[in-house]
Amino acid sequence: MTSRGAEVRARENQSKFVQSRIDNIEKHYAEICQEFASYTRKTGRLRDKGDAVAKAVLLYADSETPSMKTGLTGFAECLSSVQDYRNAEVDRLERKVVTPLTLYGTECKHAKSDLKASFAAYGKEQKQQKRLEQVRLKNPSDRHQISQAESELQKASVDATRSTKALEDEMDRFEKKKMQDIKQTILRDFVQIEMVFHAKALEVYTQAFQTLMSISEDDDLEEFRNSLRPPSTPGTSRLDLVRAGSKGSLNSTSRSTGNRHTPSTDRRNGSHHDNHNMTNHDDDDDDEETDEDEDDSYYRS
Amino acid sequence: MTSRGAEVRARENQSKFVQSRIDNIEKHYAEICQEFASYTRKTGRLRDKGDAVAKAVLLYADSETPSMKTGLTGFAECLSSVQDYRNAEVDRLERKVVTPLTLYGTECKHAKSDLKASFAAYGKEQKQQKRLEQVRLKNPSDRHQISQAESELQKASVDATRSTKALEDEMDRFEKKKMQDIKQTILRDFVQIEMVFHAKALEVYTQAFQTLMSISEDDDLEEFRNSLRPPSTPGTSRLDLVRAGSKGSLNSTSRSTGNRHTPSTDRRNGSHHDNHNMTNHDDDDDDEETDEDEDDSYYRS
Repeated sequence: MTSRGAEVRARENQSKFVQSRIDNIEKHYAEICQEFASYTRKTGRLRDKGDAVAKAVLLYADSETPSMKTGLTGFAECLSSVQDYRNAEVDRLERKVVTPLTLYGTECKHAKSDLKASFAAYGKEQKQQKRLEQVRLKNPSDRHQISQAESELQKASVDATRSTKALEDEMDRFEKKKMQDIKQTILRDFVQIEMVFHAKALEVYTQAFQTLMSISEDDDLEEFRNSLRPPSTPGTSRLDLVRAGSKGSLNSTSRSTGNRHTPSTDRRNGSHHDNHNMTNHDDDDDDEETDEDEDDSYYRS
Repeated sequence: MTSRGAEVRARENQSKFVQSRIDNIEKHYAEICQEFASYTRKTGRLRDKGDAVAKAVLLYADSETPSMKTGLTGFAECLSSVQDYRNAEVDRLERKVVTPLTLYGTECKHAKSDLKASFAAYGKEQKQQKRLEQVRLKNPSDRHQISQAESELQKASVDATRSTKALEDEMDRFEKKKMQDIKQTILRDFVQIEMVFHAKALEVYTQAFQTLMSISEDDDLEEFRNSLRPPSTPGTSRLDLVRAGSKGSLNSTSRSTGNRHTPSTDRRNGSHHDNHNMTNHDDDDDDEETDEDEDDSYYRS
């Protein structure tokens, strides 16, 4: 094997190496991009489900006693707020992680066409080399033809060298950019986007916890007992009873049951302004049942 | 309208009130349960996608230069660790939020049958009341029959009163339990499960960030340049070149390209023990493409 033969093989191997680097990036970045896109979409689905939980809790809160109503509404608002942050997370993941990764399809295409151009110049050099050898064999005395072939080979060699150099520079730039993109932007942004979301969620859930803890079971139980067994109102006349009965209001009417089962602990001038909530049946949440293609019910009644 | 009529209506209204409370809980808790179950499932999907991203990054890391390989592997491990915490979150949500909510189906069923029993006793009392009135009308002088009807009514009244009292106690217990379950266990557990997850994720991502920042682009670029344009090795003989060529190793072979395009900055006794990674084409990640029923590709090459 000649030194020239080794060089030819080396050149081809360099070309193969470059090709394999580009193919590798193209393949893996496409996969990583697809998985990040998928992750982003699933985060969006989770945001929607978080909103659905918040909505269901809010609807329920509207039908509850005052303290529960306040506490549950606050909880639902926190849950909804977490989904707002999740929505910002989804937007940012799409913009700062998925989109930059999609650009690598084009990046790799360009790198490949650079490689092709470089290899074409090298092929031309080889062709000129062969031509020169043929001329030397056939017409060893034709100085003019030999000199012309030598000159053409030199030109092709310069082109090939320049082209190879350009490819190497381009690959250098490509490698550097790729690493910086991964380290300084794409994955770093991913980590930061996730961190911001988790930190915000932690903050909001701390608030949700406090809101829940502010629910006073005792106040609400008293409210409930007053509705179930309202205290006898001393000033209640027969007329009041009749009027109360004809109004059909649960609370007003149940006053007429007298004080048979009203324990003394239930006595208090309870405010009844929230009674309408107790019997308020919201049936406008039918849309909660949609888009559950894969849901097998956990709830067996 | 008589006082008795008002009492009858009051009794019926109390019964309706209790019924509406139970129906309300049954309806809303079923909805909330379903939404939490759905939220939990979506969290599980997100966990799977997070694992898929980690896997894709890990596969890519294996094909990269040393520093990138280390950094990306560390990043993938962190991402995978976040999914482990998410998995614990899913398990805990199912166990501590969804399952307790499903139990309300049975709770409500029991409360309804208590209401039914109470109303039956009340119906019996009313029936005895009517019978007594009929006896008084038909046989006003029959002391024995009247006295017997009076005695039966009294018995029915005692039963009805006891039953009503039992129902009221039961409803009291039901209301109290419901509030405590929501405040002290179900929603509180939900908030705590979420908080633990977010705190852990924040911790792990902090680590992921540090791992990413430890990637040395310069080291890897030098490694890459050495592979693309290896430094001329003084001791390389013709035999080495031939052997290198026949081995087909990219790095060994590319040595034979000589030092035509090797800038002085690239000179260093670079370690080549990681070269196999650069050309290591993993094609065993085909399973990455499955289960993407809804994925429209973000990646256009």
